[in-house]
Amino acid sequence: MATLASLLAFRAKVPSWLLCGRWAPPPARGLAGTEVPESEPRPTSARQRDGIRNIVLSNPKKRNALSLAMLKSLQSDILHEAESKDLKVIIISAEGPVFSSGHDLKELTEEQGCDYHAEIFQTCSEVMMLIRNHPVPIIAMVNGLATAAGCQLVASCDIAVASDKSFFATPGVNIGLFCSTPAVALGRSVPRKVALEMLFTGEPISAQEALHHGLLSKVVPEERLEEETMRIAKKIASLSRPVVSLGKATFYKQLPQDLRTAYYLTSQAMVDNLALQDGQEGIKAFIQKRKPIWSN
Amino acid sequence: MATLASLLAFRAKVPSWLLCGRWAPPPARGLAGTEVPESEPRPTSARQRDGIRNIVLSNPKKRNALSLAMLKSLQSDILHEAESKDLKVIIISAEGPVFSSGHDLKELTEEQGCDYHAEIFQTCSEVMMLIRNHPVPIIAMVNGLATAAGCQLVASCDIAVASDKSFFATPGVNIGLFCSTPAVALGRSVPRKVALEMLFTGEPISAQEALHHGLLSKVVPEERLEEETMRIAKKIASLSRPVVSLGKATFYKQLPQDLRTAYYLTSQAMVDNLALQDGQEGIKAFIQKRKPIWSN
Amino acid sequence: MATLASLLAFRAKVPSWLLCGRWAPPPARGLAGTEVPESEPRPTSARQRDGIRNIVLSNPKKRNALSLAMLKSLQSDILHEAESKDLKVIIISAEGPVFSSGHDLKELTEEQGCDYHAEIFQTCSEVMMLIRNHPVPIIAMVNGLATAAGCQLVASCDIAVASDKSFFATPGVNIGLFCSTPAVALGRSVPRKVALEMLFTGEPISAQEALHHGLLSKVVPEERLEEETMRIAKKIASLSRPVVSLGKATFYKQLPQDLRTAYYLTSQAMVDNLALQDGQEGIKAFIQKRKPIWSN
Repeated sequence: MATLASLLAFRAKVPSWLLCGRWAPPPARGLAGTEVPESEPRPTSARQRDGIRNIVLSNPKKRNALSLAMLKSLQSDILHEAESKDLKVIIISAEGPVFSSGHDLKELTEEQGCDYHAEIFQTCSEVMMLIRNHPVPIIAMVNGLATAAGCQLVASCDIAVASDKSFFATPGVNIGLFCSTPAVALGRSVPRKVALEMLFTGEPISAQEALHHGLLSKVVPEERLEEETMRIAKKIASLSRPVVSLGKATFYKQLPQDLRTAYYLTSQAMVDNLALQDGQEGIKAFIQKRKPIWSN
Repeated sequence: MATLASLLAFRAKVPSWLLCGRWAPPPARGLAGTEVPESEPRPTSARQRDGIRNIVLSNPKKRNALSLAMLKSLQSDILHEAESKDLKVIIISAEGPVFSSGHDLKELTEEQGCDYHAEIFQTCSEVMMLIRNHPVPIIAMVNGLATAAGCQLVASCDIAVASDKSFFATPGVNIGLFCSTPAVALGRSVPRKVALEMLFTGEPISAQEALHHGLLSKVVPEERLEEETMRIAKKIASLSRPVVSLGKATFYKQLPQDLRTAYYLTSQAMVDNLALQDGQEGIKAFIQKRKPIWSN
Repeated sequence: MATLASLLAFRAKVPSWLLCGRWAPPPARGLAGTEVPESEPRPTSARQRDGIRNIVLSNPKKRNALSLAMLKSLQSDILHEAESKDLKVIIISAEGPVFSSGHDLKELTEEQGCDYHAEIFQTCSEVMMLIRNHPVPIIAMVNGLATAAGCQLVASCDIAVASDKSFFATPGVNIGLFCSTPAVALGRSVPRKVALEMLFTGEPISAQEALHHGLLSKVVPEERLEEETMRIAKKIASLSRPVVSLGKATFYKQLPQDLRTAYYLTSQAMVDNLALQDGQEGIKAFIQKRKPIWSN
């Protein structure tokens, strides 16, 4: 079985956000069933079943703003037992009509000061990179408006399914704060001219446009959103975790490389994949015309 | 207020085309109202109002070919008082049914010689890079055919709006001159297979196809072209210039970087943005539920 | 005339897969008309006429699996007289309802051993890079299912035309072998979210979806597939081979570069193109309003 450690060793030259000490504080509160009493309710909730972890942004009154507390809670829920073989896939969704409105502007006033602002953007960037570096696929399930860093969160997930009533925007320029960090994820998802029009005008695009331009994987009617997202999640949960993890890490590792380096890295990954127990089990099962039994 | 100098200092490692001596000759003729008598009419015209500069390719008899004179005139109009806070956005359009047919082939004959050819391609490349490095957004407004370097000009703008009767092509291969410089801008706008089919066959694509593949931001009926382009331009002109400039420079700076570097650069840009006078004004106005007043 | 050697010298820093000794064994059997008797039939067939070479994957009983023998046969057919000026364009198609099902899984069992697996992936990668580095455009003509390395082959061609009944998938994850090498070509053709959904779920996309996302250049009804592909091939065959070759090499060379380097490289390529005999002939013919006569 490929452990997280071996996966990380595999991509040794990538700075390892996952292992970075400050990222993995022992979660003060666990997942469903182990809540610890506290003064303020957590801004996210999480439960896990049959390999699928559902993380829900749960502060609809504040339009699920990505306050520092929200970011840290989300980070903690994503990191929680990331190495467990019981975890196969993560879904991030939200309560209420707004998926997320982005940063909490009250945290960005002059009074809070420069260092506090820096901490917010750094934490937010860490969460976005954590999604990419996490060993299992992470799916955004969007039903409503996703703006600024909320749009960035959708763009940063591996897969994104949205209801047809969803909208996406990077409107920071309207309030004098250009969406430069959201533009990192947006500019890597949609064509440059689409990204710049969104960034310069702040105007929203529909779910269909977002799908069309590559920001989303799939758009469905609201009533089918959960069903379709779960269908994808269950499919992934039925697969071999070490194979999927190796595949995800390799994908992001090769993507920015020149073609020759990319093929060198991935050819090696294919050989490593075949050497995994599940790699040989899959081939044998296929030749013997039976279902594979994953060791994970 | 962020001056152009500070913006350029911000992106110190990007070679500064804007400050490059040979780029900014004192314009022999100014914008509207300050024309200097001369033997030949200028191949471009320009006027500015309410922060919006309109530059028009004005040689329809020669299909607005990007002759060396046309390129230098365009360059001069783009560079003119680029640092002025009265300039918020630039629109490039054209007189007549052809937006631009690309280079003037009479300038590319054997008789003109290698050095002259080199000067043409270098000047053209400088104009395309100037568009990206300019402190304000530059919009192409296209109503008709844009081919070869004309197509490159559209692809190089930050935003492009076209009428539905417009067409785009890179037909150089038909006359034995492969559109290699246009391919730089085209290949960064549309998928590889689309770019290569255009380059290898020389066949045009429609405005709808161009929109679909990311070469354009928007397609409208001819009668709405000016209205829609002006709507976008006015929106941009209503925003804070230093915020938009910082955002534009940051966008292009982060795009080619790896994810970690991109987030490092943009997190810093967000903090810098918040420290701008207009950055704090925007947040305050939002919290106080009033319109922001930009200092620019 | 630009020879292959000069084209390769032009892109000196690109590791030259074309010149790599192990790639160009004297073909044991030539193209049509020079077949050599042998024990097993060749898994590909090839014929050339009027500058157009048709290479056909010819093992429909095994779903045109890219076995090591198939890969080497394909490589040999692509490399055969690559420098000949009689060759202008290559079409790769397949017999039967499956374009290609990817690697032959019987070659990937434990018994075959690690070194054998490595040889397969390396040979496959070489074929994919050969397509890019080859001096003439290579078109995939797809009529049916293309999966895993079969999908990679389509994605790796310069142009791809498919019938509307075609489907594309990277289903390796279902049998515990993540499509990491196909993902190199796929991830450079379609948006990241599309690629990852295909890779994580193994589900197919239709020809229309593939066109929409950039994996294909064109989709036509089955009965028009050959006609449309030949139309494109004939167009390319009517052009100047050295001009097309210089253009193809320059395109792939500039694409991964930063904008300034890309314009430096391509401006030089434009000057070189104009210095080609066919470069000047094309311009002269255009000015004299006659058809150009290519020297090739």
